[in-house]
Amino acid sequence: MKALAFDVFGTVVDWRSSIIGELEAFGESHGLQRDWPAFADNWRAGYAPAMDRVRNGELPWTRIDELHRAILVDLLDAAGIRAGETEIDDLNRAWHRLNPWPDSVAGLTRLKQRYLITTLSNGNVSLLTNMAKYAGLPWDCVISAELFRHYKPDPEAYLGCAELLDLAPEELTLVAAHPSDLRAARAAGLGTAYVLRPLEYGPGREPHAVDSNEFDIVATDFGDLASQLGA
Amino acid sequence: MKALAFDVFGTVVDWRSSIIGELEAFGESHGLQRDWPAFADNWRAGYAPAMDRVRNGELPWTRIDELHRAILVDLLDAAGIRAGETEIDDLNRAWHRLNPWPDSVAGLTRLKQRYLITTLSNGNVSLLTNMAKYAGLPWDCVISAELFRHYKPDPEAYLGCAELLDLAPEELTLVAAHPSDLRAARAAGLGTAYVLRPLEYGPGREPHAVDSNEFDIVATDFGDLASQLGA
Repeated sequence: MKALAFDVFGTVVDWRSSIIGELEAFGESHGLQRDWPAFADNWRAGYAPAMDRVRNGELPWTRIDELHRAILVDLLDAAGIRAGETEIDDLNRAWHRLNPWPDSVAGLTRLKQRYLITTLSNGNVSLLTNMAKYAGLPWDCVISAELFRHYKPDPEAYLGCAELLDLAPEELTLVAAHPSDLRAARAAGLGTAYVLRPLEYGPGREPHAVDSNEFDIVATDFGDLASQLGA
Repeated sequence: MKALAFDVFGTVVDWRSSIIGELEAFGESHGLQRDWPAFADNWRAGYAPAMDRVRNGELPWTRIDELHRAILVDLLDAAGIRAGETEIDDLNRAWHRLNPWPDSVAGLTRLKQRYLITTLSNGNVSLLTNMAKYAGLPWDCVISAELFRHYKPDPEAYLGCAELLDLAPEELTLVAAHPSDLRAARAAGLGTAYVLRPLEYGPGREPHAVDSNEFDIVATDFGDLASQLGA
């Protein structure tokens, strides 16, 4: 194993608390009271169906920024909130300003000493690059589904990442907090590292059901992952 | 201007002295005496014609790693040097292990505080990523002609870089030591910063002929570039 490719939303960054914080600030500046945690959850919930419309060919290739924006516009309408185009653009870019989990930067910094570390996210390149600057994520390179015009879990995304890095699939391990992503990576021939992120969807949620032998590595956070990998 | 895209070979790294060093080490380990500086210059001289064969459609899309290797095999043959496939692969990867100019890392680190900094090189993604790890180049992201399957100076490379970063062409400035690259970037609508690298082709060479008003910025090195840009 030579390189680690990281899923980002939920695995590296805590999208939910970050988006709730951005929505609360938006609400405060507009004198609006809403259930912002529910708004954030609905925004995120719209994401997989929107990508599926791209994956099954119903929509042409469309960046996550645009998918996020279309979902946001619908949610604002449904909540009876009027906002200008520039305000919507800025709020939509909340997804470029997500905070890392407390262990992410230190763990990545350790892992980078020993392995090549890249993103492998459905987020577009500009989103991932802006996020890395915002959050101090020390990627060796920024690889996105956008480069292959195939969203995960399409095999083209996993195989395309290995090919860009000039690695055989088995020399690359996907790190993710989502079993479905890892299962697709494994089917494409990549190694798999499952990282537990029990707070991704907020407190008190059931963890993913995972067989203890299903993935090559199971880690409690990026520090644990680095230790298990000798980094 | 929001982002700087850097040409790499010659602009960020001193390919010539690095390649001569690798060839000398190769020669020493094989008990071979050759004119290694001339060998390095011939290796580099084969690069533009090889890319042109891709650009004009004579060859299908081919990575720089493969172009470099084909040139190397011819040069070894011409020099009467026999080497195994693995040895040739390793020597070819000398292009992944190029040393930065003395001001490059410090200058990029300053520029990164204020701007998004990316590669925009004809080198493939794995070459650029490995080089960044080797040389400590602090890129925000790694963008290569490989992503567009168009080598510079094709306009697709410059415009594709701006598009991936979600920037208008004029929000992106190309930094390069080569007027031809800068002229193509300018024709595509990018800003231009010319950095003098008088030693790129070795000592005692004539500098490029450049009109003092031709480019937006002319800098003596990356420290000077950072100072001129307030970084």
